[in-house]
Amino acid sequence: MATVLRLPLYLRELDELAQDRTSVVSSAELARRTGLSSEQIRKDLAYFGAFGIRGLGYSAVGLSGQLRRILGLTEPVGVVLVGAGKLGTAFLHHLATQEERLRFELVFDADEQRVGEPIDGLSIMAVSDMTRLVREASLKLAVIAVPAQAATGVLQQLVDAGVEAVLNFSPVKLVHPDVYVRNINLVTELEALSYFRNHAVTGGSA
Amino acid sequence: MATVLRLPLYLRELDELAQDRTSVVSSAELARRTGLSSEQIRKDLAYFGAFGIRGLGYSAVGLSGQLRRILGLTEPVGVVLVGAGKLGTAFLHHLATQEERLRFELVFDADEQRVGEPIDGLSIMAVSDMTRLVREASLKLAVIAVPAQAATGVLQQLVDAGVEAVLNFSPVKLVHPDVYVRNINLVTELEALSYFRNHAVTGGSA
Repeated sequence: MATVLRLPLYLRELDELAQDRTSVVSSAELARRTGLSSEQIRKDLAYFGAFGIRGLGYSAVGLSGQLRRILGLTEPVGVVLVGAGKLGTAFLHHLATQEERLRFELVFDADEQRVGEPIDGLSIMAVSDMTRLVREASLKLAVIAVPAQAATGVLQQLVDAGVEAVLNFSPVKLVHPDVYVRNINLVTELEALSYFRNHAVTGGSA
Repeated sequence: MATVLRLPLYLRELDELAQDRTSVVSSAELARRTGLSSEQIRKDLAYFGAFGIRGLGYSAVGLSGQLRRILGLTEPVGVVLVGAGKLGTAFLHHLATQEERLRFELVFDADEQRVGEPIDGLSIMAVSDMTRLVREASLKLAVIAVPAQAATGVLQQLVDAGVEAVLNFSPVKLVHPDVYVRNINLVTELEALSYFRNHAVTGGSA
């Protein structure tokens, strides 16, 4: 997972370099731009079968295309958001302004009063229609931003609807035998940060 | 970092168990509740010098207190938020409702029009006053949720003000020689998720 998480970073830099009409980029240049070591970068790319030309580097456009294929981002990918609270809404807006290859296509909320409410170009749908609508739209990626008590049920509904990978922001850790779940607990992240304040691990980063 | 990130998970479960008047908890029970392996849990806790009693387990209250000391969360810890956009605001609200040991005490935004605006019990302050106010409040933890172009400057200002650990949500990876920076890039997380849709790594979680 750590390696996979670095691929989008490389992709971003390669796209920027390609836009600046850079044709060949060295692992040293990618290292400078990403803050990673060039050794790490060469290892990551080799793992996915992307090889540069010794002493020269990688073709910016070529490697970008290769990474996009590996990540499954050659065409725009639709995402479903469950939970239109502050966190879900913020993520929806964030993605709409930061990224064109991934876009939220459906958004659901358990609050029936909010069904039909417009939100960043979408309209909030009822959770009762979720399984059917997600299946009809063939969405495979989902973001869960619901309260803890609702999270497990929502995950199962999404899996039933054919979702294959989930990013979970609810404060409960989700695990499912059939799909990949990435849990991001913002409170936990901040609590862990407190440790580093006390232990003066300087210069670290992740 | 991975180990440190698991400590708050243990802490949460221990507090819940202590509330339910459970006195002794086994690593197997903690494993069941967190979705981690009991071997992993025993290893993590031993690393930080917390040992259970063989065949019995850990004292829920005792271990909770120990973890709280390790994490530096024995007393409420103040946090500064820079960037009161949708994401920052959502995080502020999320923390206020989910966690009592950590609380935002200052919030800053570059938009002067918004200075004085109330936000979850706080009032938005001007970025020009940031270094002084953060130092006066002795805040050591910060969350950065500003646009990419502002992030590096904000980080340096925070370090100058005495901040020791930073959680960065801006879409640029921040590194600093003097403080710990944890970068969370939500777009990157979602792009990486796309990989798992295509590669059918089922049952995975992180």
